[in-house]
Amino acid sequence: MDTVIDKKPDAPLSETDAANLIEELATKARIAQKKLASMSDAEKADALRAAAASLRDHASEILAANAKDIEAGEQRGLSGAMLDRLKLDEDRLEGIAAAVENVASLPDPVGQRMDEMERPNGLHLSRVRVPVGVIGIIYESRPNVTADAATLCVRSGNAAILRGGSEAVHSNRAINKAISEGLAKKGVPEGAVQLIPTQDRGAVGALLKAAGQIDMIVPRGGKSLVARVQNEARVPVLAHLDGINHTYVHASADKDMAEAIALNAKLRRTGVCGAMETLLIDAAYPEPASLVKTLLDADCEIRGDAKVQKLDDRVVPATDEDWDTEYLDSIASVAIVDDIDAALDHVAAHSSGHTDAIVASDPAALERYLNEVDSAIVMANSSSQFADGGEFGLGAEIGIATGRLHARGPVALEGLTTYKWQVRGSGQTRP
Amino acid sequence: MDTVIDKKPDAPLSETDAANLIEELATKARIAQKKLASMSDAEKADALRAAAASLRDHASEILAANAKDIEAGEQRGLSGAMLDRLKLDEDRLEGIAAAVENVASLPDPVGQRMDEMERPNGLHLSRVRVPVGVIGIIYESRPNVTADAATLCVRSGNAAILRGGSEAVHSNRAINKAISEGLAKKGVPEGAVQLIPTQDRGAVGALLKAAGQIDMIVPRGGKSLVARVQNEARVPVLAHLDGINHTYVHASADKDMAEAIALNAKLRRTGVCGAMETLLIDAAYPEPASLVKTLLDADCEIRGDAKVQKLDDRVVPATDEDWDTEYLDSIASVAIVDDIDAALDHVAAHSSGHTDAIVASDPAALERYLNEVDSAIVMANSSSQFADGGEFGLGAEIGIATGRLHARGPVALEGLTTYKWQVRGSGQTRP
Repeated sequence: MDTVIDKKPDAPLSETDAANLIEELATKARIAQKKLASMSDAEKADALRAAAASLRDHASEILAANAKDIEAGEQRGLSGAMLDRLKLDEDRLEGIAAAVENVASLPDPVGQRMDEMERPNGLHLSRVRVPVGVIGIIYESRPNVTADAATLCVRSGNAAILRGGSEAVHSNRAINKAISEGLAKKGVPEGAVQLIPTQDRGAVGALLKAAGQIDMIVPRGGKSLVARVQNEARVPVLAHLDGINHTYVHASADKDMAEAIALNAKLRRTGVCGAMETLLIDAAYPEPASLVKTLLDADCEIRGDAKVQKLDDRVVPATDEDWDTEYLDSIASVAIVDDIDAALDHVAAHSSGHTDAIVASDPAALERYLNEVDSAIVMANSSSQFADGGEFGLGAEIGIATGRLHARGPVALEGLTTYKWQVRGSGQTRP
Repeated sequence: MDTVIDKKPDAPLSETDAANLIEELATKARIAQKKLASMSDAEKADALRAAAASLRDHASEILAANAKDIEAGEQRGLSGAMLDRLKLDEDRLEGIAAAVENVASLPDPVGQRMDEMERPNGLHLSRVRVPVGVIGIIYESRPNVTADAATLCVRSGNAAILRGGSEAVHSNRAINKAISEGLAKKGVPEGAVQLIPTQDRGAVGALLKAAGQIDMIVPRGGKSLVARVQNEARVPVLAHLDGINHTYVHASADKDMAEAIALNAKLRRTGVCGAMETLLIDAAYPEPASLVKTLLDADCEIRGDAKVQKLDDRVVPATDEDWDTEYLDSIASVAIVDDIDAALDHVAAHSSGHTDAIVASDPAALERYLNEVDSAIVMANSSSQFADGGEFGLGAEIGIATGRLHARGPVALEGLTTYKWQVRGSGQTRP
């Protein structure tokens, strides 16, 4: 590449250099995207399989690069959890390659006719799915995102401009290089997947401001990353914010089901965005103490309101802040609510609009909750930990969107497309 | 209302007052929107019919208010065209009321199941259309937008916060009052449709920044309005930008059809966003002089490239700027292009992504253009002036979106909805 960066690789970027760099990358991406848009479903799938093969061929390089990141991370004092997320080994790399093959096997949404209609004047209208265009993806730590994001974009005919976290810089570069080589063998131009060649944060700022050059930004990472992106972006953002997720146990809930779901929703994995953070127990639910005990016995800290505190000595008092907190840890806030109206009010006031669930056997209560809760995902009698593109049968996901426009919930290939109207006439002019 | 404005109706708004005002309106809108969301299709339609009746009942008040706006406009020296857009009479008011009834008759998208799937673990997933929420609409001059925007929002379960142009302030207030009264008779809360009670521009700024309170902004108006909105907004914008629309006349085009379409696309109405601005003539098209003459004879100014200048003495030279200009007038830029590749390149470089058309009899050329032109609307053998929600059978439109996300082209009720996932289980926990 002949970018601003190559000319002075180590210098910090001025604002102008950052804007120029993004413009170079975006121009290259735009040209590559046009080429991608003209490739058939089979050609794109074939290119992705070549990328998977290339990841396997370059395994030793990728693992060596990852070892550098791990070493640097240890020196910087990253936590064990962080290092674990960063760490690659042969199994994990094989998992990444298999995920790329899985994306290759997914149906290509591009070209699908969403609907068609014939007007009385003979005009034939159809709405056809097309790629969004050039997508910027900004993410943290896990190096597998480099492969996931790149391949989901390519599968749906989009060019990707990637910016991963500094702690994974060597891993990301090695993975990107392997993928790009594989894609290139099957005619996908280099610009289709580009990793921003600098970790200077100015490049992120320039990416966020490149309206007209970048069509959509997908941030994947913690709260502060997403907040920065949403604050600075002039490009539309498909954002994934907090998962302050509620499970409401209705008076009619089956005891065993309620306990199993609460346990799974909170503790299966505490660090995922679909984890339950708040448990709402109906005042008429007959077994609240057993429900709370189930979580406490599994070493979950319970922060409860006054009524919950009376159920078990181990419950600690919840503060106002607790009802708006995403713990991502073995902690749950628990409240007793008067009835379903109070539960719906609590959810409306405190949910982050990600995934909220109800456990009940009364069909009217289930349907009311499903209809009235205004979150991206509303679940009945199941664990909120199912909030995941794979579990939804989408094959993969680029993230879970908590905004209201374009796409909500798990976003996979369809969320990376938009549509255009095709109108076929026979000489019609408008009266 | 007990808003900041009522407390000091004539004082200019401080930034804090503007933010407080929008927060008051948005809070009221949010409560009303929840009520609207719980109303049935028939109830919403009934309320809209009551709004139409109320518009008719208040005709004399509305026309008196409009007379004030016209008088003020004449004093401010508004152009004849501006005054005409502002002007209401009994026929136009009846047209507005009939349009409201038309919106009432459209199918309600809310609650539609977009798709359903059953997972191997028994989870039943469906995607269901839900309202976007609280929508801010910022518009200029035409007072009918007050009625159109309000009723499209209510029909789709959204609350609307409206901000019309200063020149139509009395008309807008009178129309809003009549509509709100009609809606209220059928149980739609006051907050469902609110006109911002001040023309202070600070309120627009506060509206644009009210992320989390306002879910979407729809600007309807000229370039400078839309540009301001896009620059300042922290709320997602469904934007309607320029219509720099091309019609490409392929070598295989039928002469009569090409001339009729060019004439209609350019001159049926020159001020609409679907009007053709640039005509591209294939070098192999046999009758370019006749095509250009057709437009010139209809008093259309032609700004041509060197080859076009040779076709007729009346052609004036086009400057570089002309290829990127939306004239909205009896002017067209015209170029001779070598072939369809050159036409596609020209469109890719200069189109604003609104509506681009081809005239051809060769099916391969038609399909290539339909597939490769990346605009919201691509038309074959028809006039670009059909770019309109009514002509597309959508019944009405809130605007034509030229962005890439959420909705493209004519936006009617469906574009004012989003979706949520409903998941129905029987106790599933995630392994």
